[in-house]
Amino acid sequence: MEKKIITISREFGSGGRTIGRQLAEKLGIPFYDEELVDHVALESGFAPKFIEEHSEHSPGKSFLSYVFAPQGVPGVMNGLSTADFLWSIQCSVILQLADKGPCIIVGRNADYVLKDRDDCLHAFIYADMDYRADRIVRLYGESEKSPEARLQEKDKRRKVNYQHYTGRSWGQAQNYDVCLCSSTLGEERCVDILLDMVKNSK
Amino acid sequence: MEKKIITISREFGSGGRTIGRQLAEKLGIPFYDEELVDHVALESGFAPKFIEEHSEHSPGKSFLSYVFAPQGVPGVMNGLSTADFLWSIQCSVILQLADKGPCIIVGRNADYVLKDRDDCLHAFIYADMDYRADRIVRLYGESEKSPEARLQEKDKRRKVNYQHYTGRSWGQAQNYDVCLCSSTLGEERCVDILLDMVKNSK
Repeated sequence: MEKKIITISREFGSGGRTIGRQLAEKLGIPFYDEELVDHVALESGFAPKFIEEHSEHSPGKSFLSYVFAPQGVPGVMNGLSTADFLWSIQCSVILQLADKGPCIIVGRNADYVLKDRDDCLHAFIYADMDYRADRIVRLYGESEKSPEARLQEKDKRRKVNYQHYTGRSWGQAQNYDVCLCSSTLGEERCVDILLDMVKNSK
Repeated sequence: MEKKIITISREFGSGGRTIGRQLAEKLGIPFYDEELVDHVALESGFAPKFIEEHSEHSPGKSFLSYVFAPQGVPGVMNGLSTADFLWSIQCSVILQLADKGPCIIVGRNADYVLKDRDDCLHAFIYADMDYRADRIVRLYGESEKSPEARLQEKDKRRKVNYQHYTGRSWGQAQNYDVCLCSSTLGEERCVDILLDMVKNSK
């Protein structure tokens, strides 16, 4: 079965997003990451920055989420927590984008949302701690916390969020068609392997 | 760092052993699977068939393991259960084999035993249930149990054994350099990807 939709799940700092963008350029197909956030923003009424911050949180019904319902869409949250509400919109956006045609979707638990489509290739990109720590300092600069602490915090968030919404274990190989360690392989070879997999699925 | 030792962990029925053997032939290096069992047999005094059956069991001190100590090596088990005793011999054999030179080692938690060597490439091969069920019936024939039940039983054993002896989660992508789904990729392309990774590590 031809693989038209590629989902890329990734550890923070592993270069998964860059790999996805390069792959999209080589394949000449749309790449959704921030773009997906914009779609969710449009449908939910929340600001993109707010979505970026909240869509990786695990849920928990916050009182504030009821009080501060998104402007312009009063009442649409129907008693859902902010995270649950965003999750439902996000699922719907991912399914719509996949229906539109070939594309690459980074993060957002898209591997799970699209798990029943045979035309999807699901990849997981990860890397060792030193590689990721160097990379985030280089790309995003230093902060008060050590890069290792920032990575651990992000890992934990993604793990908890993934487990909550999918019931699966984050980074478990069997959830994906291929898992690549970018610190062993290098970003370029990860792109080549994925490109080769897509081309050979035709 | 050149990758000289390749460990292949695999789901039962995924074709990981076949992939390992083909890779060893292409690289012209030794392949250890049953051969590793023979080494353990030699060092432990147990019969190869007994080792094959017990080295994937998780421990639990069996009274019988004390009574039926291996012939010819009285007292060497030093109060260890059969499984723990075999594990210690197996670790020692794996470390010795890796010291001897380039090779491929299938199974036996070798990824964990050799995790601190920079010249190792750790791969995990898995496949979807239908593919594995077809494959084990084709290779090993039918049995009283359904192929799915046989696979689940084997998966559970390997998972429990791995977790007990390594403290890690079996099939977690981050334990390996690469994880390949053989039912998506096909055995031949798994071999090619691994071959390419080894050659490009030089």
